[in-house]
Amino acid sequence: MADPRPSSGTEPPRAGGLVLSLDAMGGDRGPEAVVAGLGRFLAKQPEARVLLHGPEGLLTPLARPLGERVRVVHAPDVVAMTDKPSQVMRNGKGTSMWSAVDSVRDGEAQAVVSCGNTGALMAVSMLRLRKLPGVNRPAIACLWPSLNPMGFNVMLDVGADIRADAEDLLVYALMGTSYARQGLGIARPRVGLLNVGTEEHKGRPELKDAHDLIGGATAKGEFDYVGFVEGGDIPSNRVDVIVTDGFTGNVALKTGEGTATLISTLLREAFGRGPLSKMAGLLALPSLQQFRKRVDPRRVNGGVFLGLNGTVIKSHGSADETGVAAALRLAGRLGAAGFAERIAARVASAVALAQDGTPMDGGATPAGGPEAPEEQQQS
Amino acid sequence: MADPRPSSGTEPPRAGGLVLSLDAMGGDRGPEAVVAGLGRFLAKQPEARVLLHGPEGLLTPLARPLGERVRVVHAPDVVAMTDKPSQVMRNGKGTSMWSAVDSVRDGEAQAVVSCGNTGALMAVSMLRLRKLPGVNRPAIACLWPSLNPMGFNVMLDVGADIRADAEDLLVYALMGTSYARQGLGIARPRVGLLNVGTEEHKGRPELKDAHDLIGGATAKGEFDYVGFVEGGDIPSNRVDVIVTDGFTGNVALKTGEGTATLISTLLREAFGRGPLSKMAGLLALPSLQQFRKRVDPRRVNGGVFLGLNGTVIKSHGSADETGVAAALRLAGRLGAAGFAERIAARVASAVALAQDGTPMDGGATPAGGPEAPEEQQQS
Repeated sequence: MADPRPSSGTEPPRAGGLVLSLDAMGGDRGPEAVVAGLGRFLAKQPEARVLLHGPEGLLTPLARPLGERVRVVHAPDVVAMTDKPSQVMRNGKGTSMWSAVDSVRDGEAQAVVSCGNTGALMAVSMLRLRKLPGVNRPAIACLWPSLNPMGFNVMLDVGADIRADAEDLLVYALMGTSYARQGLGIARPRVGLLNVGTEEHKGRPELKDAHDLIGGATAKGEFDYVGFVEGGDIPSNRVDVIVTDGFTGNVALKTGEGTATLISTLLREAFGRGPLSKMAGLLALPSLQQFRKRVDPRRVNGGVFLGLNGTVIKSHGSADETGVAAALRLAGRLGAAGFAERIAARVASAVALAQDGTPMDGGATPAGGPEAPEEQQQS
Repeated sequence: MADPRPSSGTEPPRAGGLVLSLDAMGGDRGPEAVVAGLGRFLAKQPEARVLLHGPEGLLTPLARPLGERVRVVHAPDVVAMTDKPSQVMRNGKGTSMWSAVDSVRDGEAQAVVSCGNTGALMAVSMLRLRKLPGVNRPAIACLWPSLNPMGFNVMLDVGADIRADAEDLLVYALMGTSYARQGLGIARPRVGLLNVGTEEHKGRPELKDAHDLIGGATAKGEFDYVGFVEGGDIPSNRVDVIVTDGFTGNVALKTGEGTATLISTLLREAFGRGPLSKMAGLLALPSLQQFRKRVDPRRVNGGVFLGLNGTVIKSHGSADETGVAAALRLAGRLGAAGFAERIAARVASAVALAQDGTPMDGGATPAGGPEAPEEQQQS
């Protein structure tokens, strides 16, 4: 690594060592929801400390009940959802988002969480943290409820860049593999390349090239390559990591969310129709809650920016207390695992792919699903 | 229309006039399932007649119970799911698929239904029916369960071509509008262009151009343009027709189907857990069936090929009796409405878009949702 700056996750997990940076502003529900989520996170993570960025006068009274483990870092300005990334890059120095990212840049925190404007957060993160050597296009990775044993698949890119060439897709495969390993505890992830058919002659030219590149990187990258997958495979147990460009990935992600919303609306309608259905609905409540917990987007809240010198988690703009707490847990898990360093090593190994060498990723860190680590990290 | 050949839907709906062409072969469940679906369709459509294409020795005994309204047209060969479109174009003359498409080409039937290989069916359809003047890339349109008043949105292209430029997307908007009008009875459809954000500065260059082209065609095309929509809007009540390229549309379609499958699997698991849940599941059965009926892909079975001199319906390869009957009903509705001619007029009007002129589409044919016409057409 040529970058001399300290960055997130340089130290192994240790008692009292976890420090996260949190942008209090920019979410749709205001800093109150963010601080409430922070409170929920801290209650289950007695060793964690958090730097809370935003206007001091607003945040200090909100953060007071959380005690000494929260330190408010004053930033007077706020990035609005409508601000263009280019504006924020030029004039955003006084914003809570910029300040929150700088805590990771300066080595004060192992990971940063923001509910703000995705484009602005990516722009500020690229400007302040810089891309990893070998990464042309950083990616946003999301978790997707699935039928695989961990209950979640990883998909990337879901919206960092609307284009990706074959080399980018190879780097996505490697970064996604690291994420599945550190974030979900899957020792040898199965990677698939999203296409409109599983036959080798189908799809766009860059996909055929990426197919060969990824297929040739499995030994060194310690993953299995299942070849082309289709949209129907995204929530399946055929694959753990789905690789695609940011345009297709974003449409797929939002289509999946929209379908889930439609189905839950229709289910609610169905159970609201007639007294028998209502009674059934009441009796079914525990089942439905179990089910809802499994697919609740708030519990898998947190798109991870991959390919930067530091770990950045984009929480959903509309995240409530539950969503913010989930994003912080994800940040804590990745920050503690030295995630950014592992990705850097993984990408460096890709650049040196033609050469012989030993695997450079630290192997699996068994972690359970996104809900499990909360308990594990207390021990 | 410069094309001198007779084609589907040249006559208005009339008693006894509906003739459909059905490819009996190529489906995953064999001709038995196709003929069973045909029987179900004919039971509710006492005036319809069907040309059934495939090996005579196999089909004649199967079709005998259906009586004189079914005529078997002998075709000895079958297109396999693994056959490449180019092979079928060269050597497919003896196949049931080719023969079934030719019935529309020769004016013997108003529409054709096949469960076979999509790529081969598109290739044979383009070869035998030819593209409409003004259409560069034909498209496949699907119905998508949605929250709009008809219960379904139209999306295209979902897989005819992996590319689409701005002009193609305009033609898709016009053809999709005609389909929403004839197929769903929506007098003035709302059209949206699928993108990764709703802001005008976002997305690929061809999408920005298409945005302007479609926005300029609303008066002449008698539709409303809601601008860019996102994946989450596909099943929403914001839009009736979603326009996109065939790569993105295919991924979105299959992602939606995969998400629905995941959710129904998890729901079944939830209701199978513990005696209380099982009892609730039993009580909830009518609600769940109601719900399932609403989102059952078999009931919206049938991708329509748009942009050809004739109406072609691609039924799902794994379609069962219910699915085949649904595809035949859709074919009957569109064939009776002179659908191909209306599309031709619509596209011709697009080519002449810069000129003044009166609307060329025949206005709305109220038809109800995909399940309703079955009853309406009996009267």
